[in-house]
Order: sequence, then C-alpha cells, then structure tokens
Amino acid sequence: MTSPSTDRERFLAACRRQPLPGRPPGWVMRQAGRYLPEYRAMREGKSFLDMVHAPELVAELTCQPLRRFDMDAAVIFCDILVPPAAMGLEVEFVSGQGPVVRPPVRNARDVERLRDFDPLEATGFLAEAIRLVRAELGAGKAILGFCGAPFTVASYMIEGASSRNFENAKAMMAGDPALFRKLLARLVDNQIPYLGMQVEAGADVLQIFDSWGGTVDAATYRELLLPEMQRLVAGAKATGAPVICYLNGAHHLLEVLAETGADVLSIDWRIDPAEAIARVGSRVALQGNLDPCTLFAPPDVVRRETRRVLDAFAAQEGYVFNLGSGILPKTPVESMQTVFDELRAS
Amino acid sequence: MTSPSTDRERFLAACRRQPLPGRPPGWVMRQAGRYLPEYRAMREGKSFLDMVHAPELVAELTCQPLRRFDMDAAVIFCDILVPPAAMGLEVEFVSGQGPVVRPPVRNARDVERLRDFDPLEATGFLAEAIRLVRAELGAGKAILGFCGAPFTVASYMIEGASSRNFENAKAMMAGDPALFRKLLARLVDNQIPYLGMQVEAGADVLQIFDSWGGTVDAATYRELLLPEMQRLVAGAKATGAPVICYLNGAHHLLEVLAETGADVLSIDWRIDPAEAIARVGSRVALQGNLDPCTLFAPPDVVRRETRRVLDAFAAQEGYVFNLGSGILPKTPVESMQTVFDELRAS
Repeated sequence: MTSPSTDRERFLAACRRQPLPGRPPGWVMRQAGRYLPEYRAMREGKSFLDMVHAPELVAELTCQPLRRFDMDAAVIFCDILVPPAAMGLEVEFVSGQGPVVRPPVRNARDVERLRDFDPLEATGFLAEAIRLVRAELGAGKAILGFCGAPFTVASYMIEGASSRNFENAKAMMAGDPALFRKLLARLVDNQIPYLGMQVEAGADVLQIFDSWGGTVDAATYRELLLPEMQRLVAGAKATGAPVICYLNGAHHLLEVLAETGADVLSIDWRIDPAEAIARVGSRVALQGNLDPCTLFAPPDVVRRETRRVLDAFAAQEGYVFNLGSGILPKTPVESMQTVFDELRAS
Repeated sequence: MTSPSTDRERFLAACRRQPLPGRPPGWVMRQAGRYLPEYRAMREGKSFLDMVHAPELVAELTCQPLRRFDMDAAVIFCDILVPPAAMGLEVEFVSGQGPVVRPPVRNARDVERLRDFDPLEATGFLAEAIRLVRAELGAGKAILGFCGAPFTVASYMIEGASSRNFENAKAMMAGDPALFRKLLARLVDNQIPYLGMQVEAGADVLQIFDSWGGTVDAATYRELLLPEMQRLVAGAKATGAPVICYLNGAHHLLEVLAETGADVLSIDWRIDPAEAIARVGSRVALQGNLDPCTLFAPPDVVRRETRRVLDAFAAQEGYVFNLGSGILPKTPVESMQTVFDELRAS
C-alpha cells in the first residue's frame, strides 16, 4: 500500500476500499452550518435560497469549516430540494418550520406537470460554486457534491412540508404504487445529470441523502425504492466519482442498502460498528458514526468517544470518519476541534 | 386450550402467551385521540392537563373508541408526564409545540429537588378515572394503565421540552452517568407505586412507553438504561398485571428489550414480524405492527395490510394486534372500522 500524498487522495482511497496506511479520512455532515459563528454572521438576514443561488456566498460557507479544522473534504453548501425547485415547484424555507413545497404533488396531473431541467441552465449556480471552492482549496482537499434519495425528496414533494410520519407519501406508496414509482423515476431522470454537472465542475465524491428512507420497512424499501435508488447510484457512479449512501435509523436496511451499488454506506450511532462490519463490511466501505449529541459532553468524553468510534472501525477496509447524522446547531465549536485533533492523532 | 369467554380474558391470555384459539386481541395506541370527532368536540377549549385531572372526562375519552369499534381493551387517557408533575415540576402542553417542563433537570441540585409523591394523594384522579371506566365497561374488556420508561420521561425532564435529538439528556448520560442513573432511579422509585395504584383501581395490563429509547445504541441502553428498566418492569409485574414494553425504531434493541422482563414487546412496522419472532418470539409475546400511515390509504389497502400483519404474526405464540406506533390525528375514522372488521373476521 502506498500512502496517499493528499487528504483528497486519502478520502478517495477510503471510499474505494484501497488499503490505507495511517488515519482514516474524516468530515462532518452539515459541517458548514449554524454551530459556526462565522456561518451565522454570514446567513444573518438572508434566506436559505438567496444563499444557495449566490456562488460566492456558497463557496465561502463551504470553505469556512476547513479554515478552522483539519478535515479532508468540503461538502458543498446546498439543499436536496434544489432539484424539485428546478422542476417547477415553489420551495421556501420557513424559519422554525423547515421547507415548504408548493403545490404538493399528490396525483398524476401533479407528476405530469413537473418539468425536466437542464442542470447548467437551471442550477448552474451550483457548478459555479464548486469551481470557486476548488479554486480556494486546490487539489489537496476532496469536494463532496450531493443530492437527496428518491424517497426522501419525493416525501417532501408529496407532503408539501417537513413531516414526522410521511402519511401522504406512504399512502401513495401503498395506494398507488405505479404513480409513486413514476414520481421517483422523474426525480432520478433529473438528478443523474444534476450529479453529473457537480462532478464536471469539480466534485470528487457524491453523497446521496436518504434521510427518511429508514422509516420504511425492508420489504417495501426493496420492492418500491431500491430499483430507482440503484438507477440513481449507477448514474452517479458513471461519472467516475465514488458514491456514499446516507441513511438514518436504518438498522433494518443494512443488507438492502448494500445492494444499492453505493461504494460507501453512511451509518448512524444506533448501529454497532462491529455489527455493520460483519453484516456488510466486506461489500461496501463504511462512514460514521459518532452520535452528534456526544459533542455536547465535556472534552474528555468527546475525545474518548471519538477514539472509541475510530477503534471500532479500525478493522474495516474502507472507512470514513463522520458523525452518525448532521452536526447540531448548538454544538460547541470546541468539540469539533477535539474531534479533529483526535482524528489527526490517530 | 380453552377459549376465553371475554375479550379481557383473550387479551390477558395473549400477553401471558397462553394458547389461544381464534383471532388475536387488538387495540390501538392513542385510540382515544384526535382522529375521533367526539374526542375533538370534548377537548375543544380545554387544556390537556385540565382533561387529565377530571376523572369523568378521562373516563369518557377512554371509552369513546370502544363505542365505535369492537376492540378488546381500553387504554386510560393520561400522559407519561403526570409523574414528573407530581414530583414538583411544572408541566404544560403548548399547542403545536408539545410538552414544556420547567425547570429543566440539569444538575445534582435539580435531581435532589424532585419530591417523592404518594400516588393516591397526588394522582388519585387517575385511580378514580380507572374505576369509572371499569364501571362503564364491566369485566368484559381489558383496561390498560401505563407510564413512561425511565429514559423517555427523563429526556423530557432534562430537555425541558420535546426534542428531536436529546442532546442534553445524552450529554448527561455521557458526561455524568452517575447523576443520570440517580435521576432514573428517582423516577422508577415513584413510578412503581404509581403503576400499583393503577392496577389497584382496575387496570389489567400495564404498558411502559419508551418512545425515545430507540435513539440510544444497544451498548449504552444495556449499560445505562436496562437496569432501571428491569427494576420498573419487576415492580410492575409484582402487581400481577402483565407488562408490555413499547419502543419505536428499536430494530437494534430487540434482544436487549427481551431482557427487560416484560411479558410483551410492542414493535413498530420497520421490524419484519418473521424476524422479530425468530429473534425474541420464544421469550416474549409480541404486539404490533401496522404502519399508522397505512390508514391513510384506500379501504382495500387498509384491509390487505391489516391481513398481512395478522398473517405474519400467526406463527407467534402470544400476539396482540396494534399499530406500530400511535394512530395519527388526521387518520380517517373509516380506516379504523376497516381494521377492526378485519381483525374480528380473522
């Protein structure tokens, strides 16, 4: 095994399960986020979509955490609802309430009305932002592009808002599976070129966020969601970039997810690393899985728990350090420093 | 095997894993709830705690669903935060926001300040309500009493409000496990006599709601939560009533939960029934697990999915039909009729 000469190469080698001497690469979901005072200062008074559409601001937010912490990758500041907006829906981020999508997609006419978009034309701001990030970071750091998984994005489109239970999405899945499949297919048709644009602009790795896929049982996931997920992953991998698949609360889905074709599965803290390694570790790389709540504990606990996670994954060929889900807005900044100090010391 | 002569006996036999000819017993979590127009009419303009403290109103709400549907058990209308209120905390249910607990319990002094309560003195309204329900239902139907599990109740006390992530509770668990254990112990000390009072007043079965326990990994659950959970279950079982333990999103915890001593584990729709039967079905009875979202689908789908769940659990000795979590407020009433028609036809 040859030691990678940059953090970017280290990150790519881990995703590809190449033998890697020394520490694993690491980053943190939502690392460009509210826990950083410089993020809050920059977001002050601006709407989420104003930010997303301004490449200079996006590049600034994306690079902020890398100026503080010695992480291996930047994740582009964006949102999984950018594609639905480009497909003609009105997407608004309401403070304290989350995203609102209008009109909700509930029937065949609503699905027909969605338009296919040309990624550069409709979302070229994202390509521009990625180019600016590359210009700042150079070739030494990896850049992560992303999109939402079909179910997760569709659930926002169908519910029209954040939901705890997804009753409308699940009612469509159970009551009109053909229409539901059609909606997923429309999304995947549009997201494949959207991911292609991100890689073209400079993204090295693509993460697919299936934030709500864990609310579906394994048989239903396999039957209704897996085929379009596989198509999306295959389309993403055709760019040459490794693909990470993220799910939350998906202990029951590990084997199904290993069939998506993703290079890496991102798992949460509820899954014991040794069990994940035993169940799917020979087929995919793993990413995770420190509980983001741990970062609210004193520094010695943060250090101990980071170490415990790193040790637990030491046996895994192909491992990327991360939290088990996004960093929480009120996380003390010092905890992130402790985490990355420990990672670099490993 | 002798056929039970009442719904109540059927329910108790299933909890005790006694051989049972014919259909399984069934009820629905939150069956006395917002999906019923008569519930909404009665709650109009009254605060949640006003209701809970009025035995006649509680009895009325508790009996409402049994007048419509042929279910085997009534579950007393109450809340898991009644004990923390009796321990001296201010508990308020804020519309659209959930419960608020003041002051939050964050340090040793806060835990010391909690007072032990005499259940009849502080929560006698609940005993009175149970007696009224028994008077209306007679001996033919089972009555379920309940309380929250130590972690779930403690998380509200520590956070001071509903939380998505429980960062304060988990920071205390990781940072000061001795204090966290002490808080759980204080809760259990008070909840055992509180459950005893419910059985004394007429409750036949006790359910312990660990609604948020599924957010904890198995090793932490086993080390920090299981001992107090076992003590609570043992105290509850000492009343002679069977004990049901409810968790949500707990695919990773099934074996740990089977060690609580509970007679019945209530599982959600993400757990495949065949897998639950294989993993723990020889040690405990099972309850569940129709996805509450299914009730938003057309009647033929509701019927088919209810049938699928009943068939899937046919092999389990000791089974109680239920949803995988509480019925949702906007559920069409007709779906409940369909579910219970199908259960009775089985």
